[in-house]
Amino acid sequence: MIVLMQVGAGRDAVAAVVARVEAAGCTAHETRDEGRAVLSVLGRGAAELREPLAALTGVERVVDVAPPWKLASREWRGTSTVVDVGGVAIGGERGAGGPLVIAGPCAVESWEQLESTARAVKAAGARLLRGGAFKPRTSPYAFRGLGAEGLRMLRAAGDACGLPVVTEILSPADIDLFVQHADALQVGARNMQNFPLLDEVGRVDKPVVLKRGLAATIEELLLAAEYVLARGNSRVILCERGIRTFETATRNTPDLAAIPLVKELSHLPILFDPSHSSGRRSLVAPLSRAAVAAGADGLLIEVHVRPEAALCDGPQALLPADFAALMHDLRAIDSALRR
Amino acid sequence: MIVLMQVGAGRDAVAAVVARVEAAGCTAHETRDEGRAVLSVLGRGAAELREPLAALTGVERVVDVAPPWKLASREWRGTSTVVDVGGVAIGGERGAGGPLVIAGPCAVESWEQLESTARAVKAAGARLLRGGAFKPRTSPYAFRGLGAEGLRMLRAAGDACGLPVVTEILSPADIDLFVQHADALQVGARNMQNFPLLDEVGRVDKPVVLKRGLAATIEELLLAAEYVLARGNSRVILCERGIRTFETATRNTPDLAAIPLVKELSHLPILFDPSHSSGRRSLVAPLSRAAVAAGADGLLIEVHVRPEAALCDGPQALLPADFAALMHDLRAIDSALRR
Amino acid sequence: MIVLMQVGAGRDAVAAVVARVEAAGCTAHETRDEGRAVLSVLGRGAAELREPLAALTGVERVVDVAPPWKLASREWRGTSTVVDVGGVAIGGERGAGGPLVIAGPCAVESWEQLESTARAVKAAGARLLRGGAFKPRTSPYAFRGLGAEGLRMLRAAGDACGLPVVTEILSPADIDLFVQHADALQVGARNMQNFPLLDEVGRVDKPVVLKRGLAATIEELLLAAEYVLARGNSRVILCERGIRTFETATRNTPDLAAIPLVKELSHLPILFDPSHSSGRRSLVAPLSRAAVAAGADGLLIEVHVRPEAALCDGPQALLPADFAALMHDLRAIDSALRR
Amino acid sequence: MIVLMQVGAGRDAVAAVVARVEAAGCTAHETRDEGRAVLSVLGRGAAELREPLAALTGVERVVDVAPPWKLASREWRGTSTVVDVGGVAIGGERGAGGPLVIAGPCAVESWEQLESTARAVKAAGARLLRGGAFKPRTSPYAFRGLGAEGLRMLRAAGDACGLPVVTEILSPADIDLFVQHADALQVGARNMQNFPLLDEVGRVDKPVVLKRGLAATIEELLLAAEYVLARGNSRVILCERGIRTFETATRNTPDLAAIPLVKELSHLPILFDPSHSSGRRSLVAPLSRAAVAAGADGLLIEVHVRPEAALCDGPQALLPADFAALMHDLRAIDSALRR
Repeated sequence: MIVLMQVGAGRDAVAAVVARVEAAGCTAHETRDEGRAVLSVLGRGAAELREPLAALTGVERVVDVAPPWKLASREWRGTSTVVDVGGVAIGGERGAGGPLVIAGPCAVESWEQLESTARAVKAAGARLLRGGAFKPRTSPYAFRGLGAEGLRMLRAAGDACGLPVVTEILSPADIDLFVQHADALQVGARNMQNFPLLDEVGRVDKPVVLKRGLAATIEELLLAAEYVLARGNSRVILCERGIRTFETATRNTPDLAAIPLVKELSHLPILFDPSHSSGRRSLVAPLSRAAVAAGADGLLIEVHVRPEAALCDGPQALLPADFAALMHDLRAIDSALRR
Repeated sequence: MIVLMQVGAGRDAVAAVVARVEAAGCTAHETRDEGRAVLSVLGRGAAELREPLAALTGVERVVDVAPPWKLASREWRGTSTVVDVGGVAIGGERGAGGPLVIAGPCAVESWEQLESTARAVKAAGARLLRGGAFKPRTSPYAFRGLGAEGLRMLRAAGDACGLPVVTEILSPADIDLFVQHADALQVGARNMQNFPLLDEVGRVDKPVVLKRGLAATIEELLLAAEYVLARGNSRVILCERGIRTFETATRNTPDLAAIPLVKELSHLPILFDPSHSSGRRSLVAPLSRAAVAAGADGLLIEVHVRPEAALCDGPQALLPADFAALMHDLRAIDSALRR
Repeated sequence: MIVLMQVGAGRDAVAAVVARVEAAGCTAHETRDEGRAVLSVLGRGAAELREPLAALTGVERVVDVAPPWKLASREWRGTSTVVDVGGVAIGGERGAGGPLVIAGPCAVESWEQLESTARAVKAAGARLLRGGAFKPRTSPYAFRGLGAEGLRMLRAAGDACGLPVVTEILSPADIDLFVQHADALQVGARNMQNFPLLDEVGRVDKPVVLKRGLAATIEELLLAAEYVLARGNSRVILCERGIRTFETATRNTPDLAAIPLVKELSHLPILFDPSHSSGRRSLVAPLSRAAVAAGADGLLIEVHVRPEAALCDGPQALLPADFAALMHDLRAIDSALRR
Repeated sequence: MIVLMQVGAGRDAVAAVVARVEAAGCTAHETRDEGRAVLSVLGRGAAELREPLAALTGVERVVDVAPPWKLASREWRGTSTVVDVGGVAIGGERGAGGPLVIAGPCAVESWEQLESTARAVKAAGARLLRGGAFKPRTSPYAFRGLGAEGLRMLRAAGDACGLPVVTEILSPADIDLFVQHADALQVGARNMQNFPLLDEVGRVDKPVVLKRGLAATIEELLLAAEYVLARGNSRVILCERGIRTFETATRNTPDLAAIPLVKELSHLPILFDPSHSSGRRSLVAPLSRAAVAAGADGLLIEVHVRPEAALCDGPQALLPADFAALMHDLRAIDSALRR
């Protein structure tokens, strides 16, 4: 860790920093650069000194040398992690299996809606089924999902079609129910920093799909993954789903740079969600193609048999026929890049 | 609600919109403007048609006429709400009592630290005591608070000094513990859209301090308040604490426009948190003065007797002497504006 | 245009709006929705009433029905515009020619550097040469380009290799020099709203590459294009180059959704710049692949024979060998999607 | 300057960095921290090595020790700069003169409009007159100002009322005209990084009001000031006018933290513009009060005698009576804080 002092900082200020460092069992080495003192702080536990040192008089800035996450980093584990979700492998090299796609409706609304959508996405080549039973909704007056009943329907639909199921958990209190019914637990964007929930999914033996928060940096996404890994669950799958920016023509701004960058920084797989990224049906296909070309380990796509009747996010749902056409393009890109 | 069709949308597309509207028991009235159909949709339940209509072919945009929140709006309740927290009134007109300040350490670390800080802020004129027992931390390796023990300490320190206490709740599971020990429950920025938590604090008989999320619009803040109000708890106090922007010189960007704007849109009181807004001790006093001048109903300020020893957010904590000097300025501004 | 009144707005306020509308020769038709008056404003010149009406007491919001740009819109011109730059066609359908790539160094530094880079990109399949002679630099102490001498070198290098040249113009005063030497004039991100410059490039007979500003919405980009089109120059090529967001791990956030969205809203071609979008060499190839898959009409890529010696933006420059490998991938994706 | 190497970087990579440093006449000193090499780079010209070093293989990050601006920094000049604009002093300590306010219409529209507004703001206590003659407008179809004729009117109105005048310059070509007629030249937000314009206003003997760009960091604002200072014009006045964020309820987000922060980092005066910051008349007064309380050196406020007839920005213009009431409040706050 490096501590940059202010230009005007006197000997007393530097001495106070050194004393604080040494009190923590670390050592400080001073040099001068551009008229200010620069201290290299070494030793176990140096990372914990970040805030205490920044709080001292005369300190301008504290610079971390290592990233604050460990277990999630490529430095910790060089080979890419492959996570098994109900028999389907996510992550690793571009495989012969073609692009990995998780598809289904935003929300489970009825058996008929779910089962017809599930059959359609399976037929088109999706490998996992998604669908929300507990929905986080911005307005208290919106449809919030069928709850436990929806979860059981999702399980049944997945079993009927032969697709493992992924669904979002909102509350630590529901953990047993989700472990019983889902093949992977999704932590949504709004809960990326819901730490009691991260603790809980970190303690169970199920894969976790962790979505990037609307305002979360890539560093914060990896720190959220670190929570789960540090609790003992090593099966974490990340997901880029767009960030909030000044642009309002789309629901969010898809950050496709996050895909190759996460792969540089971490060994964990990363998915892309074109539906929430854009919020517009017409943009889902081009963004899906882009993500596969950029190297995403999979896609999470919303499909609905009748979007205009959807209780949630109809404007961004693909129709089954559009989804099938998209799958064709994705296979073509994937295949072209595997050669 | 108004539906704008695309220029190229044919009669079929317009007819499909009208059919959907009438199926929901509402009515649609068509006009044309700049070469496109414009539909006024009237009737109870029109608001629920927003997404289904936006999902239809040929629809360009759906425009809400009324804001999506009701109970939180000034239209619903014209007079400003005053919330009582342990005998202290928050909200309403600038009163003779001077500026309302809630102060204390970021985290409860020890009895000695807490009690000395509490006495100092009380002496300087703070009217409530703050302090975190359960801390949301970006890194899993950081200090996460003393938990239930910290909560009891906070209660004891508040009682010892004669200050009601405000503290942050992270999980719905802890609700009973917080109801027992705290005078007001704080829902933090990261949990502004933790809907199970909003449901829970909406069901209890305690005031709630609801902080704006890092990436939340003012509309979303009011919708989060609506969750609590809709569950039956009418004692909601809002808090602006800075939003995330491209500027990294400060921890967040304080949105002081939110203060007068919330007061226009809502009857609920709004506080300002200069500590998290800026993340820098040197900016806390000028921003506090600014917020009082802009009409904030109160401030939430972090104070620590020894910031360099703080286990959390030391760089933004004021020293007791600086806090006392600030209180003097705040009273001067408040008094100047009451004349 | 639609005017939404506040709930409390009285008859006087509505009458004042109607009077202002009629004074401009337009008509207003009133309905009521959710307790407030809603006025449809029709007639030529209604668009100019936007701000005057919004300034009236009791008006809550004014909603545009048509987009504020005309000449740039798909509604105006249904077929995609193809722009000829020195004999190379940009825009239109995915053609047999494969992906269109403009490549070269960030800045022209010397004849040797420029000529070797130009030969390398030509050999790898680039169709146009880029290079800056007048450089906008954040610091006044940085290298600002070779100026007119650099422009002549660029022309000579393009001629030597048989590549048309694209280069950035900073000042209206330089227009004649650029018209003489360049095949297309680039207006950079920082100048997207430099209106005197837009006026000037709108008056000449040269294609214009208009880059999206760091903080510009897609609507503002199209309005900037409208400036050029409205002055009589119909050869405008847009370019997405990343926007400024809270994420600092990359130089900017590439908004790939802008590519298909611009193609929906406008008939103009749109390029993508992976170099400025990310600022990191390792991300240039994955983002380039993504943009071609998303449907970009071309790419603008920085290449340097010795990035560590570059006077500008070395960290984001590709080496010639990496560029050649990327071109191979781009052709594979383009070909896979043409089938 | 400090160079952080990647964990995996070998001896060759470190040697290449050292060689590049030494070739520039600087020296590098290596230490190791958390498994990676850390190089301190010292010597004149080290700052110019930033990008070349970042472009080298194995380099993770380059950290600046000193800020990249010099002439604008407090380190360079400890005492606050006071700029004289037509006999009015801007900057320095809170003076007996009370809050410094520059007021007037957004655009000069006619002699009658301008002269009546000028008399009103003078009567209420404004010390300088503002008004745009050359207007940057997002749409090419909007009113773009009266040009040279407007500039002459502004001069005449200022002379008639005894107020120095401030007005925005858009193009380097207009510099002589502005020097002749204006007391201070304003560089607007969209032109903060129009470097040919900064060069030009840096060469003349007139004060410059430099507004922060919509997407500019405080560091970039100070670097833009550095352009002007480095050309020899030391009379630079900065102005915070709101930044672009995800919040759309206001036109921009006023960053009031910028006021005290700029005063820490720089000796230059800083103004605040509440009109563009918010875009809503009702927010102008509370934000103006906030800025004075936060320590702004002055305000730039739009006033119009008939906002509903304004050709530009009517919705954010104060009426003369509201302006007079605001001036009263500002004096009260200023006076309370001077005690």
